[in-house]
Amino acid sequence: MNKHDLVIGVVGLGYVGLAYALGFSLHGFRVVGVDIDSERAEAIRSGDVEGFPRDAIEGVVDRYLYVSTSYDDLRDVDVVFIAVNTPTKSDGSQDLSQVVSALNSLANVWRSINYDYRVVSLKSTVLPGTTRSLARYAKETLGLPVPDRVGFVHNPEFLRATRALDDVLKPFRVVVGGIDERSSSYVANLFREFYRRVGYEPPIYVVSPEEAELIKYASNVFLALKVVYANLIGLLCRETENCDGLKVMEVVGLDPRIGRSHILPGMPYGGSCLVKDTLAFGRFMLEKTGLDFVKCIHDYNELVIEKVVEYLDSELNGLQGRKIAVLGVSYSPGSPVVNDSPAMKLCEKLLSKNAIVYIHDVNREAVEEAKAVLGRVIALETLERLKEVDAVMVTLGYDEYRLIPPDLYDNVLVIDMTGVVIYEKASRFYTSSTRKTRSLS
Amino acid sequence: MNKHDLVIGVVGLGYVGLAYALGFSLHGFRVVGVDIDSERAEAIRSGDVEGFPRDAIEGVVDRYLYVSTSYDDLRDVDVVFIAVNTPTKSDGSQDLSQVVSALNSLANVWRSINYDYRVVSLKSTVLPGTTRSLARYAKETLGLPVPDRVGFVHNPEFLRATRALDDVLKPFRVVVGGIDERSSSYVANLFREFYRRVGYEPPIYVVSPEEAELIKYASNVFLALKVVYANLIGLLCRETENCDGLKVMEVVGLDPRIGRSHILPGMPYGGSCLVKDTLAFGRFMLEKTGLDFVKCIHDYNELVIEKVVEYLDSELNGLQGRKIAVLGVSYSPGSPVVNDSPAMKLCEKLLSKNAIVYIHDVNREAVEEAKAVLGRVIALETLERLKEVDAVMVTLGYDEYRLIPPDLYDNVLVIDMTGVVIYEKASRFYTSSTRKTRSLS
Repeated sequence: MNKHDLVIGVVGLGYVGLAYALGFSLHGFRVVGVDIDSERAEAIRSGDVEGFPRDAIEGVVDRYLYVSTSYDDLRDVDVVFIAVNTPTKSDGSQDLSQVVSALNSLANVWRSINYDYRVVSLKSTVLPGTTRSLARYAKETLGLPVPDRVGFVHNPEFLRATRALDDVLKPFRVVVGGIDERSSSYVANLFREFYRRVGYEPPIYVVSPEEAELIKYASNVFLALKVVYANLIGLLCRETENCDGLKVMEVVGLDPRIGRSHILPGMPYGGSCLVKDTLAFGRFMLEKTGLDFVKCIHDYNELVIEKVVEYLDSELNGLQGRKIAVLGVSYSPGSPVVNDSPAMKLCEKLLSKNAIVYIHDVNREAVEEAKAVLGRVIALETLERLKEVDAVMVTLGYDEYRLIPPDLYDNVLVIDMTGVVIYEKASRFYTSSTRKTRSLS
Repeated sequence: MNKHDLVIGVVGLGYVGLAYALGFSLHGFRVVGVDIDSERAEAIRSGDVEGFPRDAIEGVVDRYLYVSTSYDDLRDVDVVFIAVNTPTKSDGSQDLSQVVSALNSLANVWRSINYDYRVVSLKSTVLPGTTRSLARYAKETLGLPVPDRVGFVHNPEFLRATRALDDVLKPFRVVVGGIDERSSSYVANLFREFYRRVGYEPPIYVVSPEEAELIKYASNVFLALKVVYANLIGLLCRETENCDGLKVMEVVGLDPRIGRSHILPGMPYGGSCLVKDTLAFGRFMLEKTGLDFVKCIHDYNELVIEKVVEYLDSELNGLQGRKIAVLGVSYSPGSPVVNDSPAMKLCEKLLSKNAIVYIHDVNREAVEEAKAVLGRVIALETLERLKEVDAVMVTLGYDEYRLIPPDLYDNVLVIDMTGVVIYEKASRFYTSSTRKTRSLS
């Protein structure tokens, strides 16, 4: 392939699709990005997208990166990355409708034209076997010339939402799982050329599509498992004399065989990836092996909120009519996403017990979303009003919560899930009752 | 304290005690090491101890390191490290008799003499709360002047048996959990001086004794959990098309949040540390919190041997009278220890089903031990005799097993748990039936 003429398509311009579209176009590839959401497309064209540098977008839009809402613009691509959502249904099964719809639309456009060879590269997280069966669907139902003139690969992404572009440019590894050697080589070569231009050489693994699909799940579910384990040790610290769970797990994480990431006890894991991936994978594993290991992860994760509510209930002598402020409602600091956020579950549980719930988040969008979902909660504009409440739960480690002046807290129970709060009278949730603060160390 | 006159005692000269005794004495500290096993003491004096460099031992014995079998020689120590075993009883409770006996003997010697201040530093793995209750026992029952003139700390070790001395000299972190500030400072300062001399500066964490005790368990049990997780993904790969579990988990381990250690599917975890620590910790957690999370680890670990036996049974059409060779019987490559080795469990299970079991290990001592424990097995002197068997299970990743000439294997089922075997007809256990060898990659 002539690399300089290679045209890359991206379907779905959420943070994953946009990060790749930007990454490729910043390094001289011609990219056509399609999102059927015209508001999103417009926002990208204007350069105003949370989590992405305006300069970077403005530098490439309409020069290397063409943003569109129409599949017609994907006529002449050599590789198309599909980065649409694959939500998990409430029964744990995977909703592939967005991927299927993208394939249908592509096939409509490609059917009438001539081309030598092109590859569909699926970035969406899908269960093992899905890429191969989508390839079969493309061939048998949509009539695409798979595998002779259309290749298929699964090429999972490992991007952190808050630093997606960085992770595209410096990945720990690239995984390419093609349905045949030609598909794999085509996409692996594209990445080799891309990273040559970036000036970085990640390991590129060529595997089967099933292996690629499984690698993504095995990675995410392991991170969920780490969170659950850390929180369980934290819960044990509550019941053990003189133990601070944050300190215990900080030291545990210094062992490089364990690692610092996801190891400090805190809120349960949340967010769309870990929650949906764990559920879908659990169901898959149960079907394939009869083993329900993911139940261990899921159930112990759920347990934390119960324990928090139990603790509040006992400290406040019941929850009915108690005013409880939850500081931090999104699933991770800075994010506007409240979907599958553990703090939201906490709020729901407190509301169901007739507590009066106040919410705050440094991200205003998260507060608006939370209000819309929860209904009868009081959104705090400032932290001044914490004077009114009976208890404050700090669920996200924002600096703003570290620095709340202590005089606000007279007679207020302050529970810190994060370790961020510097305040003598705050209770660290994961600390034994004999050792609530850092003082002993 | 005058560091140049400081005398360090070590009780128990297994690999942990000896590694510290050697480490300190190699850097100019005067060390008295006591082991009541006179054979062990003699072996150390002669310089001949597996896993330790003869030069190092010979360079310090009788100059900086005095090896004894008598507690009388611990009269004049400033710090004494207790590094005796704390086995787990079959009911999961911890057998502290060796620690208690060491304290009794120390107290007998110390009772009649004058000293200003000294510290007992417990390196043995003990459940949270144990160090503090041992200090109380030393005071109330043994009459030692705790804490005024005798301090107590828990100072867990994180040594790998095969490279214990290296790990003493370059630890990832040092954890000192004193019953009071004076105990902690005393031992922390000793380590500061030691590592100044070594020329290495590990982080030194001063924590409560309960935290120190918990850190050790939380670290080891996490590693056990990693092994179990890797093997579960491996079992899933067996049931999923086109998946090689070793390849999947190799790529997963490239994520530094996960890490390469303990992440490749293989035999279940074994060995004295992980097995006993997981059991004891599981019981402790259940008692304290009512949560039986460790059951998830333990039961899924046990499952692997069952699955292996099931597979052998089905491939060989029954096990009765089948000749099965198990290559690798110790719990990890190079080790002579067969106690709690997963390969030993496999052999036992096969014997119980009336298979004829052949064993081999690169470590001859391991073979002798295994024979003594198992009874009716055939120890293979060379791998030539593999011609006689129906199946070969490779359980440890010795180079010697990689290089077995393939012509031995005609009509022999070869199952590789390790990924080390290079042989077209070998089955990787953690690979789906459609993809047994590396060929597809």
